[in-house]
Amino acid sequence: MGGEDERRRFLFVAMPINHFGERVRWTLDLIGAPYEEYTVGGLISAFLRGRSVPQLVDRKSCSMIGNSDECLAYLSAAYAPSIADTRLRAKALSFLRFDEQTMAWDVKLNQLGHLVQGWAYFYVLALDMTPEGCLTAWGAFEPKVPLMHRLILKFGHPFLRKFMRLVFELSNEEVRDRRRKMIESILDEADATLSKQKFLAGDDLSHVDITFSALLAPLLGARLVFAPKSSYANGRFSSFNGAMDRMSDKWPRALLEFEQSLLKRPCAKHCISLYESLRSTQL
Amino acid sequence: MGGEDERRRFLFVAMPINHFGERVRWTLDLIGAPYEEYTVGGLISAFLRGRSVPQLVDRKSCSMIGNSDECLAYLSAAYAPSIADTRLRAKALSFLRFDEQTMAWDVKLNQLGHLVQGWAYFYVLALDMTPEGCLTAWGAFEPKVPLMHRLILKFGHPFLRKFMRLVFELSNEEVRDRRRKMIESILDEADATLSKQKFLAGDDLSHVDITFSALLAPLLGARLVFAPKSSYANGRFSSFNGAMDRMSDKWPRALLEFEQSLLKRPCAKHCISLYESLRSTQL
Repeated sequence: MGGEDERRRFLFVAMPINHFGERVRWTLDLIGAPYEEYTVGGLISAFLRGRSVPQLVDRKSCSMIGNSDECLAYLSAAYAPSIADTRLRAKALSFLRFDEQTMAWDVKLNQLGHLVQGWAYFYVLALDMTPEGCLTAWGAFEPKVPLMHRLILKFGHPFLRKFMRLVFELSNEEVRDRRRKMIESILDEADATLSKQKFLAGDDLSHVDITFSALLAPLLGARLVFAPKSSYANGRFSSFNGAMDRMSDKWPRALLEFEQSLLKRPCAKHCISLYESLRSTQL
Repeated sequence: MGGEDERRRFLFVAMPINHFGERVRWTLDLIGAPYEEYTVGGLISAFLRGRSVPQLVDRKSCSMIGNSDECLAYLSAAYAPSIADTRLRAKALSFLRFDEQTMAWDVKLNQLGHLVQGWAYFYVLALDMTPEGCLTAWGAFEPKVPLMHRLILKFGHPFLRKFMRLVFELSNEEVRDRRRKMIESILDEADATLSKQKFLAGDDLSHVDITFSALLAPLLGARLVFAPKSSYANGRFSSFNGAMDRMSDKWPRALLEFEQSLLKRPCAKHCISLYESLRSTQL
């Protein structure tokens, strides 16, 4: 029973590359929330259990929050006000503020998240691509993913790929181009905002900056997620370290080219600087 | 499929007399949240499914919140900021504010809720009492309770009563007296506060006043919950209307006497006035 009592308050469930998950994980890390993480293989939870990840379980109140927006909202009201350290509490409440500025960005970034997913999958799941890219992202080579999930990914990826190509309309180049245009337009807006102020929602850091960085990270594969020493998920996934070098030409050229141009943008520099300065610390 | 889309965002699950549930239900009503309610028989959910009520399900984010404190916190951050009507939104956010005053009261009222439960059950579940009182409170005569639950209550109440007497230490008069003393002390504090300001957490209504009223209601059986026209749960439970007259001497005399003295307190008047003025309206 002692072991039960000592369990951490939160259980966080996510898959390896999971940009909406990374914003919640990063928030949990920044506000010092006591949690443990359970990693599932990419897409498997949605397919086998009909529940998408991320999910945040609060053992204290027997609650389960099923969407990243609501996870942050829940943490802001049901956890942050009870942080004992008054300095950290004030910082956490400011970080998780929901005002007009942060809420307007949250809507745009929600859209950005889905656009990044749809646009990048066009290339990663293209018919002429080898499966290494998606298998790496979904965690087929990741020790933190349960063995059974890794086996399902290794043998089931042709089916998953076919299904994803259908639901995300990945054969349609018009949809792909429209997605890219919308991504660029949100990035333009982020660049413009950052030319006027230090952070996306004002002069202080907020969850919006972290959300933005977490959503953009998958487009910074070489520089960030699959770098020799990956800072994504605070280095949780050892299979990501050096994955880009290992994959070499098995990662879509179009994504590498996009990454090169993206790196010149102020908003991408903002993202990388936040990963460098804030990914392994508390507020 | 159309029917699915039109379902209300929230599903609220509670048992008939459920003071922690009533604070969430009343909040949902006041802030105009779109919800439907599912009523379960008293204690049955805890016994058969290992999950206590109330529970709030958010269909939008596939979330399930399992504790009344966290339900209110969730509504404050994940629902109230998105209310379209700006006037109602401002009122809802003020009502659901979590500041030092409301948080200090929330801790005390959580305690009050459990004390009221334990103290009232001492009499309602006494060995020499007929089961009418607990059966009425648990919903054995309530059409909104599923038939199977009503049957379980009607035939299983001796077992439920025995179990409750054990876990709540209902044979121990010392525990009973300590509970009553602690109840009186919190009521004294509420009286003192209301002599200085209009509402428990300042000059404006907050969820603290509603919580207080919902928790006190079961001790106002004749005047409120089982009155000829019950305003408890906004009149949801038709079996509560006139239940006190029907039960007559089957309701514990000690509770009726306590109610008489309670009615003289300013805090009980506050509770009744809120039930009269705010139980069937929006903020």
